[in-house]
Amino acid sequence: MAKTNPGRFFEDYTVGQTLHHAVPRTVTNGERALYHALYPARHALYSSDAFAQACGLPGSPIDDLAAFHVVFGKTVPDVSLNAVANLGYAEGRWLKPVYAGDTLRSVSEVIGLKQNSNGKTGVVYVRTRGLNQRDETVMEYVRWVMVRKRDLDAPAPETVVPELKKALAPTDLVVPDGLDFSAYDFALAGEPHRWDDYAVGETIDHVDGVTVEEAEHMLATRLWQNTAKVHFDLTFRPDGRLIYGGHVISMARALSFNGLANAQMVVGLNGGAHANPCFAGDTIKAWTEVLDKADTTAPGVGALRLRLVATKGGAPFELRDPAGKYRSDVLLDLDYWALMPV
Amino acid sequence: MAKTNPGRFFEDYTVGQTLHHAVPRTVTNGERALYHALYPARHALYSSDAFAQACGLPGSPIDDLAAFHVVFGKTVPDVSLNAVANLGYAEGRWLKPVYAGDTLRSVSEVIGLKQNSNGKTGVVYVRTRGLNQRDETVMEYVRWVMVRKRDLDAPAPETVVPELKKALAPTDLVVPDGLDFSAYDFALAGEPHRWDDYAVGETIDHVDGVTVEEAEHMLATRLWQNTAKVHFDLTFRPDGRLIYGGHVISMARALSFNGLANAQMVVGLNGGAHANPCFAGDTIKAWTEVLDKADTTAPGVGALRLRLVATKGGAPFELRDPAGKYRSDVLLDLDYWALMPV
Amino acid sequence: MAKTNPGRFFEDYTVGQTLHHAVPRTVTNGERALYHALYPARHALYSSDAFAQACGLPGSPIDDLAAFHVVFGKTVPDVSLNAVANLGYAEGRWLKPVYAGDTLRSVSEVIGLKQNSNGKTGVVYVRTRGLNQRDETVMEYVRWVMVRKRDLDAPAPETVVPELKKALAPTDLVVPDGLDFSAYDFALAGEPHRWDDYAVGETIDHVDGVTVEEAEHMLATRLWQNTAKVHFDLTFRPDGRLIYGGHVISMARALSFNGLANAQMVVGLNGGAHANPCFAGDTIKAWTEVLDKADTTAPGVGALRLRLVATKGGAPFELRDPAGKYRSDVLLDLDYWALMPV
Repeated sequence: MAKTNPGRFFEDYTVGQTLHHAVPRTVTNGERALYHALYPARHALYSSDAFAQACGLPGSPIDDLAAFHVVFGKTVPDVSLNAVANLGYAEGRWLKPVYAGDTLRSVSEVIGLKQNSNGKTGVVYVRTRGLNQRDETVMEYVRWVMVRKRDLDAPAPETVVPELKKALAPTDLVVPDGLDFSAYDFALAGEPHRWDDYAVGETIDHVDGVTVEEAEHMLATRLWQNTAKVHFDLTFRPDGRLIYGGHVISMARALSFNGLANAQMVVGLNGGAHANPCFAGDTIKAWTEVLDKADTTAPGVGALRLRLVATKGGAPFELRDPAGKYRSDVLLDLDYWALMPV
Repeated sequence: MAKTNPGRFFEDYTVGQTLHHAVPRTVTNGERALYHALYPARHALYSSDAFAQACGLPGSPIDDLAAFHVVFGKTVPDVSLNAVANLGYAEGRWLKPVYAGDTLRSVSEVIGLKQNSNGKTGVVYVRTRGLNQRDETVMEYVRWVMVRKRDLDAPAPETVVPELKKALAPTDLVVPDGLDFSAYDFALAGEPHRWDDYAVGETIDHVDGVTVEEAEHMLATRLWQNTAKVHFDLTFRPDGRLIYGGHVISMARALSFNGLANAQMVVGLNGGAHANPCFAGDTIKAWTEVLDKADTTAPGVGALRLRLVATKGGAPFELRDPAGKYRSDVLLDLDYWALMPV
Repeated sequence: MAKTNPGRFFEDYTVGQTLHHAVPRTVTNGERALYHALYPARHALYSSDAFAQACGLPGSPIDDLAAFHVVFGKTVPDVSLNAVANLGYAEGRWLKPVYAGDTLRSVSEVIGLKQNSNGKTGVVYVRTRGLNQRDETVMEYVRWVMVRKRDLDAPAPETVVPELKKALAPTDLVVPDGLDFSAYDFALAGEPHRWDDYAVGETIDHVDGVTVEEAEHMLATRLWQNTAKVHFDLTFRPDGRLIYGGHVISMARALSFNGLANAQMVVGLNGGAHANPCFAGDTIKAWTEVLDKADTTAPGVGALRLRLVATKGGAPFELRDPAGKYRSDVLLDLDYWALMPV
C-alpha cells in the first residue's frame, strides 16, 4: 500500500460527506509575531493587548486572517491537492476570536458536486469550520474548487449546487462578545476616520506597496501548514513558484491600514476571486471600495462592507477590461465585512 | 477627505508640540525569537532566562535594540514619512528593560526646528520616549531629520536648535534595578574578557560577516511596524530597496559579540550616523573602538563607551577618507554605552 | 590580547577534556512557530498541545530536531570553527522532551583524537550533551570532525578512537515519561499507517520538494546560534553560502511527513553523512528506507529505524554510484529511530 497521500479526486467526494482534516495546531505568540513580520499589519487591536482590553476583549487576538489561514491550510491535503482551480469563497464568518494558546482543527462538509461537461473535472463545494480546543466553531466558510477525476469513466454524481448568499446580511455577522468601541482611542489606532466618515461608493487608494520575495511567501505558507506543491517546488513549477492566494489577501489587508486603520476586525467574507497568479518580484498594492454600511447592536461598533482589490501594477480603481474580465494586473478581488468604531 | 496618511511636512511642526504615535505593540517571545533569527545575536543575558536571573533580573529581556526599533518604528508615520534624510541621534537612554508581555507606545516632543536656507526643507528635532503599559518610560532618544516643506511659501519658523550632549556622561546612564555582575559566569557568556581587559583606544575587528537578503531586512523592518516605503516597494525605489538603518545597527551589534561578548546591555546612545545606504547583497562586517570607560554603582558592573562601525567591505579601522568624509564602504558610525562585568 | 575567538585547533584538544559551551538559550513558542515557518513540519505531536496531551505528554514539545540544533549550535565555536569536514554522528539519543520555557546549554567531552598522516589535520571525537535548567540531560550525541592544526610542528597526540555503536539497540532508546499511543487519533495525525503497516526493507518516496532560499537557511541557522562563517558570508564563500547540514536534516524530516506522519518522535540518531553540499536554489526532496523495527515497553508505542535520504534531484532510492560513492545529487544519508503507534 502506498504510504503517501495522493489526495482526493472528484469521484471520491459525495454530498453530505464529512472530512476531518488532519494536524491540529496550537497557535501562540510566535505565530502572532511572525504575522507582523510577514505583513505590514498595524491594526491596533491585533498589535496591543492593552488596546484590545480597552475594547472589551481579554487580550489581543491572533489576526483574523491568520486564523483563516490555519483553518484553510488543513483542508489542502483533502480538498485541493488535485485541484485545477480555486473558484470562489462565500458565507465566511468569524465567530470567535482566536487567542494565543488556542488549538485549532478543521472539519469540512461536502455540500455540492457538479461534474463538468468535459467529463475530466468537476466542481466540489465544501463548507469548512475551524474549531478550537473547546469544540467551539471559531470560523466557517464555503469554498469551491475544480478537481480532476482519477478515473474518467467514473459515473457523474447527481449535480447539487448549493444556494449561497451573494453577501452576508448584517444580521449574519457575529460581533465578538464584549466588543465595545465606545471609548475607542483613535489617536492610538492611527487614524481619525470613523464609520460615519465612510460613504458607500467611496474608493481609497492605499498608496503603499510591497515587492514580494520567495522566502517570505514560503515562510508564510508553511506557517499555515499549507502543503500545496506549487508554492514550494520550482522543479514542479519551472515558470515560478505560485504564491499562495492567502498571502496576497493578508498583504492587501495589511496595506489597507493606510486609510482603513479603524476597520479593526474582519467578521465576514462575502466572496473572493484570485484574478491572476502572483509571483515573487511582483509589487503588491491595494485599493478599497466601500460597498455597504450597517449598524450592529454592540456599543460603538459599526460594520463596513468593503471590496479590497490587490494589484501588481496599473492604476487604482480599475478592475475589469472593456470585455468585463479582470485586468491582467489585478491579483485579488475580495468582498468582506469589517467592524469599525461609529 | 483623503483617508490615507500624507505624513507631516516641515511647516506642520511647532516647537513644544507633542506627537502621540499610533499603534501600541505587545512584544512577546515571538519577537524575541525572531530577533535571534534575524541577527546573529548571542549575548547571554538576552538568550537565557537562567543567565539573566543569575544577573539579578527577573528574566531575559527583549534585546535593547529591538525595544529601540519598536519605539522608533511608531514614529515613522509622524516624523519621517516626508524626510529627506535621517541626520542624527543623541541622548538615547534605556531606562527599563522590556520583557515579553510588555506593551509599548511612543510619544515625541518637537524640541527644535530650523528651516534650511534653500527654503525647501527644514530640520526637525524630536525627543521620543517609549512607554510601557504602566506608563513607565523604557527608553528615550533625540533624533533629527530633514523634512520637506509642502508649501514652499509657508513662513519659516523661529529657529530653535536644542543643545544636545556630545555624549552622555556616565552619571546619565541608568543601570537596571537589581543588575549584579558579581557572580557573572564568563564561560557561559562566551568570552573571558572583562571590563578591566579593555583599554581606551583599543580597536577590535569582529571578523564575522553577513551577506544580507531582501526577505530578511523586510521581515525585520515590518516586525517593528516601520512603514517607510523605501524599504519595501521596488517600484518606488527601482535602484533597490533601501535597508532600514536600524537593521544595520542590529546586525553590527550582533556581530560585535565576537570580541565583546560581555558588553551585555546597551544603556546609552550618544550618537550615530548612517554613513552610506545599505542594499541587499551587501556583506556587513563590523569593528569597534573603545572610546571611554566608567564605573557604575551596581555590583560588578562597569560601563564601556564604544564606537561601533559597520562596513560593507574595506579594511577594518578605516573610517574617513583624507578629506574627512566617511569612506564609501562605511555604513554606520554608532557611539554607545554598554554595561559589562568588571 | 586578541579579543575575538580564533576557535580551537587540533592540538588544543586532549582526550578527557570537558568543553562548557557558551550562550545558554531559553526556547519558547517563538522558536516553535519559526520551526513551523522554516520547515513543512506537520507531525501532530509537535503541532498541537491537545494532541500531545492525548498522548500523555504535558503539552507539545519543541521539535526534537530543533532541540538538536540548539544543542549543536553552541558547540560550533568550540568544535568546528576550524573544521575542514563534519565526518559523522553516532549514539544520538533524545532523553527528555524540551518544552517552551526550558533553557538549554551544551557540554562536550573529548572522547577521541587521531592525527591524520598528512600531519596537517586530525580527527576530534566529542560526546555532546544538552542540559536543561534542571541540569537534566535532554539529549546527547557523538560527533567527529576533521580539524586543522595551528602549528604543524605540534606533536601528534596518542591516537584514541572511541568504539561507537553502528546503531543504537532498541533497549538504548528512551521513551518519554508518560507517552501512550493506545488512544492515538490517526485521523487527526493525518495518516492511517501504523507501526504494523511498515516492513523492514520498505521504501517510501516522500514526493514533495522545497526549493531553498538564502534568507531561509540563514534565518534557521542563526536561530540556533550557529555562527559558522560559511553559512552567512558570501565574501568568505564566493561560490555560494554553504547551507547548514542541519537545515537539510530538518527539511528532509519534515518532508517525510508524507508517508510517515505517524513517526512522531525522533529518539535515536544512529549515524549520518552530509554527502554533498547544499546551496540556495537546490530543490530538496526525500525518501526513506525502513531499516529495522522494535517494540517498546510504553503502551501502544513501537520504534522504527529509518534511513532518511535527502536529494537535490535524481530518482528516489538511488544512493550510491557503481563505485560505492554517494551519488552527486544525494545531500544527506541519515539513520534514526522514531516512535510510532503500533
